[in-house]
Amino acid sequence: MLISVPATSANLGPGFDTLGVALNLRNSVKIKRSRFFSVSIKGEGASNIKLRGNNLFISIFNEHYRKLIGRTDKFRFTFINKIPLSRGLGSSSAVIVSAIAGAYAAAGVSISKERLLNLALHYEPHPDNITPAVMGGFNVAVVEKGRVYSLKKEMPTYLKAVIAIPNKPISTAHSRTKLPKRYTAGDVIFNVSRSSLLSAAFFSEKWDFLRIASKDKMHQEIRMQAMPELFELQKVALENGALMSTLSGSGSTFFSMTYANKAQALAKVLKNNFSSFLIKVVDFDNKGLIIEE
Amino acid sequence: MLISVPATSANLGPGFDTLGVALNLRNSVKIKRSRFFSVSIKGEGASNIKLRGNNLFISIFNEHYRKLIGRTDKFRFTFINKIPLSRGLGSSSAVIVSAIAGAYAAAGVSISKERLLNLALHYEPHPDNITPAVMGGFNVAVVEKGRVYSLKKEMPTYLKAVIAIPNKPISTAHSRTKLPKRYTAGDVIFNVSRSSLLSAAFFSEKWDFLRIASKDKMHQEIRMQAMPELFELQKVALENGALMSTLSGSGSTFFSMTYANKAQALAKVLKNNFSSFLIKVVDFDNKGLIIEE
Repeated sequence: MLISVPATSANLGPGFDTLGVALNLRNSVKIKRSRFFSVSIKGEGASNIKLRGNNLFISIFNEHYRKLIGRTDKFRFTFINKIPLSRGLGSSSAVIVSAIAGAYAAAGVSISKERLLNLALHYEPHPDNITPAVMGGFNVAVVEKGRVYSLKKEMPTYLKAVIAIPNKPISTAHSRTKLPKRYTAGDVIFNVSRSSLLSAAFFSEKWDFLRIASKDKMHQEIRMQAMPELFELQKVALENGALMSTLSGSGSTFFSMTYANKAQALAKVLKNNFSSFLIKVVDFDNKGLIIEE
Repeated sequence: MLISVPATSANLGPGFDTLGVALNLRNSVKIKRSRFFSVSIKGEGASNIKLRGNNLFISIFNEHYRKLIGRTDKFRFTFINKIPLSRGLGSSSAVIVSAIAGAYAAAGVSISKERLLNLALHYEPHPDNITPAVMGGFNVAVVEKGRVYSLKKEMPTYLKAVIAIPNKPISTAHSRTKLPKRYTAGDVIFNVSRSSLLSAAFFSEKWDFLRIASKDKMHQEIRMQAMPELFELQKVALENGALMSTLSGSGSTFFSMTYANKAQALAKVLKNNFSSFLIKVVDFDNKGLIIEE
């Protein structure tokens, strides 16, 4: 069977641990029953020896497979990874989601996307990447008593993402510890109102609202200080056709959204000005997790 | 001319200073050129002598009329007020909006709803009541550099509001000073995520999400402590068909939303259990400010 999961860009400015969107940049894994356990990795992470032996995918896969079947079996896992590692594009959420989905598929047990999402929440307590990874599209997610409650909006094809991937990461753990423990009422209202308006703008397809609605006072600027060229990159993106331009998750990738007919021009400006970044024009994804037998 | 403006219920739980919805319970004012200045008030506030002399409406009306015409003129103002005063139903926002609209109408100057909303913001710095008062429907509003950016969703007729109006107010000023100056990151994420999901639920008409999405950790419970029977009222409402049940603005009214076919039953339960409250079943309003010549 073949499992594939899209990259995701979370937070989207004010929607801290809440908002996320899926990008058509997929990690896939082929799982085949075999006499010997084997792992092969192509693409992102292929050169990382550690990933081949004891990786997160295999441990989650085995945990669920054992629960379902009562034993472990031998499989040949072939990974084709397109999601850059540690760049705020949801690579670990993709691993978690595909491992659980793979275990259920390999065990021949069907599982709803809703239930799978709640299982994924055990490994990744923030729903903003795992939800679009499973569901595709733009998602608003809340966690209540260990369950995800989420609503999805399909992204139209006339919009594209332009992602700017730096050649180094910002560590999530490092950057989360730098965030304030408390926020002023004014800053809270700033984010509550903008995240709500951003949701409304996506659901009503009022894209002109994204620029105002995508501003944040909780995390973005603090994290960007670890890589100050991101401030300039955001400015250039907003001056060159980006409807919004936000740190992707906790970074280091910067996510911009444009009308499709302006995407190549924006990508070109970013390439010319930020030569150390990998600039990609990417379609949005509306499918999320795909399982093919 | 006749100006009318609907009641509004703001915050809606987590959407502090952000979310609001218009109710078909209107204040109207007839404005007629006259040889003598006169004010008559019917309905809410009619017994309040102070309102007749130097009221907020007249001062805002005169300020704008003078700006537009260069002088003041004499009018006969006939108010018919249905919005209870100081109960968190947007009565002062209705006054502000109708006074500005009245001045423009009396001066024969047309004004867009967007511009009128931004003028109203000078008198009421929080957009969550004035926006639905002007626009009607459910609104998400952000203030940026003295301007309101808002998105509206029309409310379907198969939903009704059931409002429970106590026989005394909670003072806004008093209850705002009791609120925390700072919030933990966890509480902020709680409200950011729920307010975003609540917006998404209104825009996508996924009413089953309202119960989870309407929870709040910023203001509601602190304000409800000034009138502890509201906790019981909320519980009873949610057990008897309310899709959501939240403090209206800063109170003291409690706002519940139900399917139309369950509204009367809910109202009856509330009447039986909370005899000191005035219980009303009200339609939602999608028109907002109405100006008739």
